[in-house]
Amino acid sequence: MVFVDKLLSAGRHNKSLLCVGLDPDVTLMPGVGLLGFNKAIIDATADLVCAYKPNLAFYEALGTDGLESLLKTVEYIPNFIPVIGDGKRGDIGNTAKAYARALFETFRFDAATVNPYLGHDAVEPFLEYKDKGIFILCRTSNPGASDFQDLVDARGMPLYQAVASKAREWNTEGNVGLVVGATYPGELKTIRKLCPEMPILIPGIGAQGGDLASAVKNGIDARGEKAIITVSRQILYASKGKDFAAGARRTAQGLRDDINKIIDQAVH
Amino acid sequence: MVFVDKLLSAGRHNKSLLCVGLDPDVTLMPGVGLLGFNKAIIDATADLVCAYKPNLAFYEALGTDGLESLLKTVEYIPNFIPVIGDGKRGDIGNTAKAYARALFETFRFDAATVNPYLGHDAVEPFLEYKDKGIFILCRTSNPGASDFQDLVDARGMPLYQAVASKAREWNTEGNVGLVVGATYPGELKTIRKLCPEMPILIPGIGAQGGDLASAVKNGIDARGEKAIITVSRQILYASKGKDFAAGARRTAQGLRDDINKIIDQAVH
Repeated sequence: MVFVDKLLSAGRHNKSLLCVGLDPDVTLMPGVGLLGFNKAIIDATADLVCAYKPNLAFYEALGTDGLESLLKTVEYIPNFIPVIGDGKRGDIGNTAKAYARALFETFRFDAATVNPYLGHDAVEPFLEYKDKGIFILCRTSNPGASDFQDLVDARGMPLYQAVASKAREWNTEGNVGLVVGATYPGELKTIRKLCPEMPILIPGIGAQGGDLASAVKNGIDARGEKAIITVSRQILYASKGKDFAAGARRTAQGLRDDINKIIDQAVH
Repeated sequence: MVFVDKLLSAGRHNKSLLCVGLDPDVTLMPGVGLLGFNKAIIDATADLVCAYKPNLAFYEALGTDGLESLLKTVEYIPNFIPVIGDGKRGDIGNTAKAYARALFETFRFDAATVNPYLGHDAVEPFLEYKDKGIFILCRTSNPGASDFQDLVDARGMPLYQAVASKAREWNTEGNVGLVVGATYPGELKTIRKLCPEMPILIPGIGAQGGDLASAVKNGIDARGEKAIITVSRQILYASKGKDFAAGARRTAQGLRDDINKIIDQAVH
């Protein structure tokens, strides 16, 4: 099954546009170990999400043990739920090919995030995996996003829109998506208009302060789908005690239901 | 010792601006294994280089075994030679902090390459390591570089120059450098003028077709230093047989000497 179908199918099965970011912070874990923590979170939320998204940085910081846990985490996630490897890689063709192999074959992710700064040949080796999803960073959720992404070219188009427009061009196989931060709802709205069909990965809710209602309303497609609302810390550390899994479930369920209410109002 | 001093000191000791890119391709290795190959290359070239630069992609593609070999490779490199971890990472503050920890503490690199697309707060956690080197992608060596890096803003400034100019601003601790491809000698010249003091990492010689003489002349600072001419495949696979280390040494020595002749002509 190609990525976008797997995403839609998991989302419909679980009635959810919520994606849990598996970004483990060992200093916040109640003595269960990284893999144990992830497994408990997955057990507690697998009926509430459309995808999981581990960010590779948190595993790399723990060295090869961390990456071993990442491999086992991906393996543990139920097969019908897509896993997005958030690595934001970007390198010249020959090297990008090695990264694509690492993410799609070694780590077996269903999708990956990719940085567009190097241009087409840095993205191309990812695009060749037609059944995988490639999420291109467009408008990131952080405060510094405007440093370069807002630079306006001679046509009056800011860089993040130029990226969205190139991404649409590169999407000949229907395997391209975009990353747009919930913290920039106006930009999200513009991008959804530019790219009505693409899945959009939307981080920035919760710890980063993005507004859920605007993110959902501006991010969904015409059918009320293809927005992937990603929440990490707010869910993982809802409770910092031994009941962290129950806390995560409660928060995830609340978010999933809130998202569905917002969609109902927006679409009907 | 801070990174730039370590770089200058190794370069002066070995009379070299050459950096060997340790980008192992297992399909091209004559049956010695990844770590054995790297060790033989290091043994054969450690008196000819100013730095080594492993690109993480090639190790990640081999999973945790590959990354274990990378850790051992970094450990094996003689202490006086700086090691640049080429990962081109870039992520929001909280995550960038984990990447910086991974590269500088777990993998113990002396310097790292960083992607500027996310702006200042994605680079900041790297900059906080004052004794490390942070090479910001400015003008990359690949054909697609122009897709976004050439976009010209309202002031008439292309993105790659906007990045160079921000990098200069962020360089309050003298730990910032730039990555500029040898395949764009005109852009390299402009950037060297904009940033006369920064080390510039220059890939693109050899397999990618960049011209050595223009790269050296346009890349060096006023004293004929601070250009890091990075060559990978041309050295590693100079000979594809059992004499690969001897072939690598011969090619590295030739390149080192050619670079020095070009500097002599340019500076005197």
